[in-house]
Amino acid sequence: MNKHGGYFGKEEIIDFSVNINPLGVSEKVIKKVHEVLGDIIKYPEIDGKSTRNIIAEKLDFKSEEIILGNGATELIYLFARAIKPKKVLIIQPTFNEYKRAFKLNEATVVNFINKWEDDFDIDIDSLILKIRNEKPKVLVLCNPNNPTGGQIKLNKLKIILEELNKINSYMLLDESFIDFSENKSLESLINNYNIFILRSMTKYYAIPGLRLGFGLGNKKLIDLLNAYKEPWTINSLSLSIVESLLDDYEYINKTKEWYVKEKEYLYQEIKKLDKIKIYESDTNFFICKLENSKSKELNDFLLNEKIYIRTCEDFIGLDETFFRIAVKNHYDNVKLIESLREYTTKY
Amino acid sequence: MNKHGGYFGKEEIIDFSVNINPLGVSEKVIKKVHEVLGDIIKYPEIDGKSTRNIIAEKLDFKSEEIILGNGATELIYLFARAIKPKKVLIIQPTFNEYKRAFKLNEATVVNFINKWEDDFDIDIDSLILKIRNEKPKVLVLCNPNNPTGGQIKLNKLKIILEELNKINSYMLLDESFIDFSENKSLESLINNYNIFILRSMTKYYAIPGLRLGFGLGNKKLIDLLNAYKEPWTINSLSLSIVESLLDDYEYINKTKEWYVKEKEYLYQEIKKLDKIKIYESDTNFFICKLENSKSKELNDFLLNEKIYIRTCEDFIGLDETFFRIAVKNHYDNVKLIESLREYTTKY
Repeated sequence: MNKHGGYFGKEEIIDFSVNINPLGVSEKVIKKVHEVLGDIIKYPEIDGKSTRNIIAEKLDFKSEEIILGNGATELIYLFARAIKPKKVLIIQPTFNEYKRAFKLNEATVVNFINKWEDDFDIDIDSLILKIRNEKPKVLVLCNPNNPTGGQIKLNKLKIILEELNKINSYMLLDESFIDFSENKSLESLINNYNIFILRSMTKYYAIPGLRLGFGLGNKKLIDLLNAYKEPWTINSLSLSIVESLLDDYEYINKTKEWYVKEKEYLYQEIKKLDKIKIYESDTNFFICKLENSKSKELNDFLLNEKIYIRTCEDFIGLDETFFRIAVKNHYDNVKLIESLREYTTKY
Repeated sequence: MNKHGGYFGKEEIIDFSVNINPLGVSEKVIKKVHEVLGDIIKYPEIDGKSTRNIIAEKLDFKSEEIILGNGATELIYLFARAIKPKKVLIIQPTFNEYKRAFKLNEATVVNFINKWEDDFDIDIDSLILKIRNEKPKVLVLCNPNNPTGGQIKLNKLKIILEELNKINSYMLLDESFIDFSENKSLESLINNYNIFILRSMTKYYAIPGLRLGFGLGNKKLIDLLNAYKEPWTINSLSLSIVESLLDDYEYINKTKEWYVKEKEYLYQEIKKLDKIKIYESDTNFFICKLENSKSKELNDFLLNEKIYIRTCEDFIGLDETFFRIAVKNHYDNVKLIESLREYTTKY
C-alpha cells in the first residue's frame, strides 16, 4: 500500500494531513443516517441505480452518464481495469493511487512533472511534445491537484484534450476537490472528448468513512466501465443519504463561508513566515516548502503541539522539504500558524 | 450484471429470495452503530488492520492469514485478478459471480455440474477425471452451496484438495453460508493446501447493507492478494462494529434456536406437499423443484400473496422449474407454506 494522509494514533491530535471539511458531518445528514439505519438489513441496490438517478437529476446529468463508486478510488481502479492501457502518462506530482492502479493492470507509466521551481505551472508545449512522442492511451490529471492544490485553466485543458482526441486517447480527470474550487468542472465536455471525470462526495460533506464518489463520462464509456464493475460495492447508508447531502444548502453555504475566509487567512499568515514558502491553491489545502529543514523534522516538532501534517517525500517530483496542510477551522488554523512561527524562529 | 435475489419494489413483501437472518439486526449492534456514527468523518483504516486483528483474535487465526472485503464479493473479484488463472473449473449450479469475475480476467471457464437427478450429490470420480483432463489453475466450490444448499463432506473435499495440490492449483472455497451449517469450516487446512476460504458476516448478522466479509488463506496467498487490493474499500461503520457482532452471544444463540426449529419445520411441511420436491439443505435456504409448472408462474401467484421467491432459471444446471427460498420467521414460514399448498392444489 502507498503512504497516505490521516493520523491513526490514539492521541487527540489536530489532523492537518486530511483534506476533509472541518465543519464536521452536517446535523441533517447525521439525522438522515439515523433514519435510514434500518436499510443495513437489506442488500444495497446492485449498481445503486436509484441513487444515480437522484444525482443525475440534482446535478443535471443523464443517468447513463454517471457511475457510482465506493469512494472515487474504486473508479480509478475500475477505469484502469476496463481500459487496460498499454501506456499511461501521469501529470506529477499527484495522488499515488493512479500509478498503482495502472501498474496493477500492466501498463507502462510515464510521468510528466510540473516543477516546483515553476510553482507547479504546467508547460503545455512540453506536455504536447511528450504526448506526441509517447502516445499514451490514457493521460491522468488531478484538477485541482492533490497535493499541490493548483488547477489548470480551461483553455489549457482543451489543448490537451484536443491532442488526446487526435490519437484516440482518454483523459482520466480527477476532480475530487473541485467542490472547494471557484473554477468550473469539465463536466459539460464529456460528450466532446474521451474524458472520465471523477468526483468525490466524501471531502466536501465530510463523510470519508462512508465512502461515496461518482464518475462522469459519455454513455459509451460508462457502459464499458459497467461491464467491469463489481456488484454491491456501495453500502446502503451511502446510497440512502445522497439526497439529503445534496439538498443541505445550509451546510453547503456554511462551508463556503468558512472556506473562503479561513483559506485566505491561512495563506496570508503562512506567507508572512520566514523559511516557509506557501504555494497558491485552488482548493482546501496548501502545499508548502521548507527552506532550511525537512518536513519530517517539522512534523516531529508539531506532533509535540498535537498537530499532524502530511509530509510529501513520497510524491514524484517533490522531496523531503515539502508538506501539505488542509484548511481547518479558525481555532485550529491559528494554532498551526503559531506553531509554525515558533518552528521557523528555531530552525 | 447478473440476476440476483432481493425484492426492490415499493410494496411491503415477505422476501424469501434473500438468505439473510430474519431475526433482524441485533439491538446491540444497532446501538453500537449509533455509538460509532462519528467515525464516518474519518477515513477508514486503509486495509482495516485493526479490525482484522480483532477477527483474528476472536476466531483464533493469525492476522496475516486474513484479508477483509467489502462483502465477500470483493474478495471473489480480487482473487480472480491476483491469480489470473488461464482456466477455472466451477462446480455448478452455483452463485453466478464466480464465472463473471474470472471471465473478466480472461479465464476460460469450465463447468462441472452436480445433477438434480442425483440430488446435487457430487460424483467425485468424474470430478477427479475432469480435473486431470482440464488441469484448471483454480477450482471454485461454494460450500454449503448457493443455491442448492448442500454441503460436500470433509473426506470428499480432501480428495479434491489433494488432486489440486498435485497440479499446484487453488481451491476458491466460498463458505459464506457456513455459519448456518452444522458442519465444520475447512479453515484449519489453509496451511496444508492452496485454498482461499471466503466468509461473510452479512448473512448471519443480517447486515448486507453494510458490506463485510473476510477471506482466509496461508500468508503467501494473502500477501499476494494484498498486493492487488484496493485501498479503503471497507467503510468505517463495518470496521467499527465487528467486535460487537462477534461478542453478541445472545443474538448468536437466539439465531441458532430459531434456525434449528424453523428450518426443520419448513422442510417437513413442504415435503408433505404434492408437486413440489424440496431438497435437503445444510444451510438457511432450500432449493425446490416444481413438477407441473414453472417457478415464474409460482412467483406470480405468490406475489399476489405478497411473497417473493428466487426463481432459478439463470443458474447453470438448473431450469425454470426450480426456485429457492430462505428460512424466515415462523409467521412468514407458515404463510409461505399455506400459499404453496394453495398453489399446488390449483396447478
